[in-house]
Amino acid sequence: MTKTYAYAAQSATQPLAPFVIERRTPGPHDVQIDILYCGVCHSDLHTARNEWKNTLYPSVPGHEIVGTVTAVGDAVSRFEVGDTVGVGCMVDSCQRCDACAESLEQYCENGFTGTYNGPAQEDGGNTYGGYSDKIVVHEKFVLGIKHDRSQLAAVAPLLCAGITTYSPLRHWNAGPGKKVGIVGLGGLGHMGVKLAHAMGAHVVLFTTSPGKEADAKRLGADEVVISRDPAQMARHASSLDLIVNTVAAPHDLDPFLALLKRDGTLCLVGAPEHPHPSPTVFNLIMKRRAIAGSLIGGIRETQEMLDFCAEHGIVSDIETIAMRDINRAYERMLKSDVKYRFVIDMATLKEEAKAAA
Amino acid sequence: MTKTYAYAAQSATQPLAPFVIERRTPGPHDVQIDILYCGVCHSDLHTARNEWKNTLYPSVPGHEIVGTVTAVGDAVSRFEVGDTVGVGCMVDSCQRCDACAESLEQYCENGFTGTYNGPAQEDGGNTYGGYSDKIVVHEKFVLGIKHDRSQLAAVAPLLCAGITTYSPLRHWNAGPGKKVGIVGLGGLGHMGVKLAHAMGAHVVLFTTSPGKEADAKRLGADEVVISRDPAQMARHASSLDLIVNTVAAPHDLDPFLALLKRDGTLCLVGAPEHPHPSPTVFNLIMKRRAIAGSLIGGIRETQEMLDFCAEHGIVSDIETIAMRDINRAYERMLKSDVKYRFVIDMATLKEEAKAAA
Repeated sequence: MTKTYAYAAQSATQPLAPFVIERRTPGPHDVQIDILYCGVCHSDLHTARNEWKNTLYPSVPGHEIVGTVTAVGDAVSRFEVGDTVGVGCMVDSCQRCDACAESLEQYCENGFTGTYNGPAQEDGGNTYGGYSDKIVVHEKFVLGIKHDRSQLAAVAPLLCAGITTYSPLRHWNAGPGKKVGIVGLGGLGHMGVKLAHAMGAHVVLFTTSPGKEADAKRLGADEVVISRDPAQMARHASSLDLIVNTVAAPHDLDPFLALLKRDGTLCLVGAPEHPHPSPTVFNLIMKRRAIAGSLIGGIRETQEMLDFCAEHGIVSDIETIAMRDINRAYERMLKSDVKYRFVIDMATLKEEAKAAA
Repeated sequence: MTKTYAYAAQSATQPLAPFVIERRTPGPHDVQIDILYCGVCHSDLHTARNEWKNTLYPSVPGHEIVGTVTAVGDAVSRFEVGDTVGVGCMVDSCQRCDACAESLEQYCENGFTGTYNGPAQEDGGNTYGGYSDKIVVHEKFVLGIKHDRSQLAAVAPLLCAGITTYSPLRHWNAGPGKKVGIVGLGGLGHMGVKLAHAMGAHVVLFTTSPGKEADAKRLGADEVVISRDPAQMARHASSLDLIVNTVAAPHDLDPFLALLKRDGTLCLVGAPEHPHPSPTVFNLIMKRRAIAGSLIGGIRETQEMLDFCAEHGIVSDIETIAMRDINRAYERMLKSDVKYRFVIDMATLKEEAKAAA
């Protein structure tokens, strides 16, 4: 076992604070990683505060992890010490079901093991995420990173925000000749715009904030629509092949359904705490439209996404923070006061640990 | 113009009663049809009573029409006098848009012309449906019927109930190796069971009525599930490829979504007057499931369906009524007191007309 410095929530009402955990000694298939950066996802906050009513405490969030390999098990062939690697939302899955066989581990029929809030497969207990200085992960769930080392902080959010938007864009064939909408310009949405643009689609960003237009265009949007303006919305009626909706706050889906072409899909990637108002069936029937959902992406597709991003020079737009500033970052995140993702520089945690020792 | 006997509603609150309309003299591309039978669809009642708030009066419902060709225009090559033919829910469409080019006239981007409640393309006025002794229709919207003449009454409901279930079954690939659910055993549902069975799928019928089990199995269901019984529902969790939901009354969709496999689709073919309770996004996201809608079918697919049914000996289970009994039939339909479709024998209208003359 290896003593590991982390930040944890001890209950739904306590702020995150320093906490020491143990990481397992690497087994034959394990990769031990020194964490350099960890992105801050809205799920981290939901879990720390038990907003999904399933949090195991103590809770160490973080599933947008980039680091350096410091040890590998005897059976590991794909990674070696010194490699730059990533870990996303999953650290294990059953490896026996049809979904795992297709490398769609996110849909594992026996439930994947989350990078945090487990349950760990070895003992059924909790798993601890990337708000820590190291992690040990089965090689099957470790991703190779080809980006330049100077970009690594901004690569971290690709592991969740990136793949969450990449996967539905690929599944529903975003690309040249397709008109793709992205709803919301936050952590997920700004990645959706960059990725859909790089795939060659005509990208329309839908936002409630008039102030985001210039930024959306800089990120790759061809058009920006203020979704609260019915006249602007009407100009896109029945014209979009796919809309990836990243907004988790409950809102009316009908105005977006009306923008889909025949056989178009509105894909939801955010799960609201309370349901959206019920969508009208008429909008679905009249053009064989669909409302679907999508969850992160499988390991094979996550690697494909990282390679695609390295090739196209895509990273997240981030603001780097110190580990000790995480609670303040959560408050700013709740006010959407971040462009567009916080990333924790884990050197700050290591300094804290050294000072405390 | 040709004097035509019909039954019409003169307002939302008046029962249907005898009414004389005019049919146009057949143009070069027109087919004139002596109507033998017309099925009674729930849409007929919705329209007669203005429940969708768009009815043009007088309203002559009926869009499950079977008859005999009595005249054809000079340019008509596909039909000749004496042929047995059908007319479904559409009598015209723009013929210029992408949907029409794909023979998906039901999704015509300029709006198809309904067999009743128009608007007629020539004058923008109303169209009158199959509760009448004859009809004149552009040859593009006339279907050939290969069934035996003794089956014609039971063929009529294929023109709406049949194609409404056939189209989503084909679109989402019902067939051998697929487990397909049909929700509701009424006019649409009983056709869905027969068609999915004939396509080779494993068919599960979902009903709230325990009394329908034997009938559902006779019609082709492999399994019958009482959808109000959570234990019975749970046995099918995450196992269905497709569910075609024919129930238009508002109901909770979540228990059905939970029965879909990864990438499965819940296809709604009934539009409720008030929305269903809002479905949980979580059910969609966790297995990339979709809720979609589907509207009747295109002309090419309707012909394919009729030929498929002729080949497999499929017709509707019907109860034949006289034209003058239509208002009583509506009341019985509202109580689901029909197995499974009323069909008007139009000889009864012709007798009435003769007696009145």
